[in-house]
Amino acid sequence: MAPSHLFGKGLFYYLMVSQKRGTHLNDSVGLVTTEYADFAEDLRLESGRLLGPLTIAYERYGTLNSDGSNAILVTHAWTGDAHAAGFHSEEDRKPGWWDNMIGPGKVLDTDRFFVLCSNTIGSCKGSTGPTSINPKTKRPYRLSFPALMVRDMVRAQKRLIDQLGINSLLAVVGGSMGAMQALEWGIHYPERVRSIIPIAGTGRTSPMSIALNSLARQAIYNDPLWKKGNYRLEHPPADGLALARAVGHISFLSDASMQLKFSRRFSVRDGMFDFFGKFEIERYLDYNGSNFVGRFDTNSFLYLAKALDLYDVAWNFDSLSEALDRLDCPSLWFAFSSDWLYPPQQPEEVVNELQRLNKPVDYHLIQSDYGHDSFLVEPEKFVPILKDFLDEQAG
Amino acid sequence: MAPSHLFGKGLFYYLMVSQKRGTHLNDSVGLVTTEYADFAEDLRLESGRLLGPLTIAYERYGTLNSDGSNAILVTHAWTGDAHAAGFHSEEDRKPGWWDNMIGPGKVLDTDRFFVLCSNTIGSCKGSTGPTSINPKTKRPYRLSFPALMVRDMVRAQKRLIDQLGINSLLAVVGGSMGAMQALEWGIHYPERVRSIIPIAGTGRTSPMSIALNSLARQAIYNDPLWKKGNYRLEHPPADGLALARAVGHISFLSDASMQLKFSRRFSVRDGMFDFFGKFEIERYLDYNGSNFVGRFDTNSFLYLAKALDLYDVAWNFDSLSEALDRLDCPSLWFAFSSDWLYPPQQPEEVVNELQRLNKPVDYHLIQSDYGHDSFLVEPEKFVPILKDFLDEQAG
Repeated sequence: MAPSHLFGKGLFYYLMVSQKRGTHLNDSVGLVTTEYADFAEDLRLESGRLLGPLTIAYERYGTLNSDGSNAILVTHAWTGDAHAAGFHSEEDRKPGWWDNMIGPGKVLDTDRFFVLCSNTIGSCKGSTGPTSINPKTKRPYRLSFPALMVRDMVRAQKRLIDQLGINSLLAVVGGSMGAMQALEWGIHYPERVRSIIPIAGTGRTSPMSIALNSLARQAIYNDPLWKKGNYRLEHPPADGLALARAVGHISFLSDASMQLKFSRRFSVRDGMFDFFGKFEIERYLDYNGSNFVGRFDTNSFLYLAKALDLYDVAWNFDSLSEALDRLDCPSLWFAFSSDWLYPPQQPEEVVNELQRLNKPVDYHLIQSDYGHDSFLVEPEKFVPILKDFLDEQAG
Repeated sequence: MAPSHLFGKGLFYYLMVSQKRGTHLNDSVGLVTTEYADFAEDLRLESGRLLGPLTIAYERYGTLNSDGSNAILVTHAWTGDAHAAGFHSEEDRKPGWWDNMIGPGKVLDTDRFFVLCSNTIGSCKGSTGPTSINPKTKRPYRLSFPALMVRDMVRAQKRLIDQLGINSLLAVVGGSMGAMQALEWGIHYPERVRSIIPIAGTGRTSPMSIALNSLARQAIYNDPLWKKGNYRLEHPPADGLALARAVGHISFLSDASMQLKFSRRFSVRDGMFDFFGKFEIERYLDYNGSNFVGRFDTNSFLYLAKALDLYDVAWNFDSLSEALDRLDCPSLWFAFSSDWLYPPQQPEEVVNELQRLNKPVDYHLIQSDYGHDSFLVEPEKFVPILKDFLDEQAG
């Protein structure tokens, strides 16, 4: 069943215009296509509600080997999507979001590994979310979409793995919300996962992180165009969503990275004493916020923010210890020194508990000035460790 | 000249209903009155613009001694006011904002010292600001009010000190924006200041701090009621201002203080899977944001945010060193370990330069979980040091 919404397949089909390989494609997996898997059966969510039928958008790179032992699942962050590597067309200048990690000869080496990335449910990038048509009403779900937890995203993803005939994942690897998914995979499907690699993650989001998301939410709620989620898709609450994105953007950066990039420079276009005069950091946030509006749905943004806020690996367990005791595979953790959204103490809480439980766990605190975004910006700082770990897991 | 605006003298006169001393007044300076000083002459601002006439709201506690040597100036933060200690009426249950510091037997001991606190220009608490009447148009300034720097606030304050016949200040002490004012006093009026005590301050605001203020600004600009500053005072852009305040509030707290106070507790009134369900930290931010709307003017909030963003002690000097070399008195600095708005490295940059210049400087990094707000929440952690320092200065 093709979902009929703004951010779905249409865009990908549109971009799939050529199979010819441009020179800028040489250092990548090349031209790729987003695929869609449909699931008729309802999914029971943590909330008790049912969601179905489901569509899951995904991309795959490399080849599954004969014994099905070389599959790596890449899990994406808040506003990420299934398009993790390669290009959608020859004209496409922007590769997938983790193209520096995935491809021939790269750490997630598509000459060796079969790499899979799927869009989480609740998102607006091809998988079932608030912009999808509710089959019961024949209209978009909007706020009638059920609240999700990260655990639900993983549960849906599991169906895709089943359908693709992948019995065992060599690794589940992802940053931020992707790290949460990796941990949930390890805990809830221990028989299917041979290692997990949570990067810039946390065992549960902190009140600081919830507080920042609450600013983002309120920014959207304050926008008269939001209309309690009933905005027209072509007239989204742009000002509110741009501001909400700016909140997120600040939390992904760090004091040090802003100093490096912008310092206290004032915009050359403005007078310093003009009431509306701006510093360069402000222009940057404005630009990124506005830019985001065209590429992400507001309700999806809110549903995923809520999933982040609700994230607690110990949810529905008696304790963190009980949850983590289910993990049955080696885990490799990376935290970044300047990450103030999920500061190192947060993954360390999980790592310490895993050590106490005598689980095989490897933790690296990476010195980086790029805040939470370090996992996207400075992969070279952790890639060698990740490569060794994968080699070891692959045997 | 009486300024005619919502947040001016009227409220104070209204509250000045009784001179009788209630029992809750015993541990304070008792009943106090906000006074107003008028200055006919224009003030030349850093921007080159003229502002005048000026009114400055202030309060004084204790008695100036015969040789005028016991005056301490207290400088307030962003949304502070002249009412630093005591009560405005017997019914008044909330004392001034630094009442735990100022009073008989307290560290700023009104039995020994003459303590003065004035509202900064640009504010809405009795001193000339965007809600004041522009004498040229007979209408409120609103956005025709000139942009201010902290240096301008101090320049205006200097007139008050002159008018009150105070030749020498034993100390200028304040937190946050108050710390900036203390430093400016020491640098621009070295002949009038015998010590400065900047608490939770910085030598220049960071791009992170500017970025957070830009969220606050945008929250207000997005509110249709703002009308580019031409809102009716009785219909302020309440949603925008409340959100702007929430941004500030988060930056004044810390991860640790939020953990202590709210943890991940969900509001008992909400369902966890309700779309609009809230964590307690969110309810707290909502409450404080809404509460703020009734007590602060939106345009003033924006002008003061801009003054904070523009703050750089080296402004109009060739270097930080040249600026600090003008300081001719001992300085006592406090920073707080969990302050992420003006983290310890920021005051330390100034302190290090003062040391390099062989200035008498004393710096204390206080371990506290209460973030930037520590200077208001945990005075007991620095008060003993401050007391010794004042004793030494007072001789």
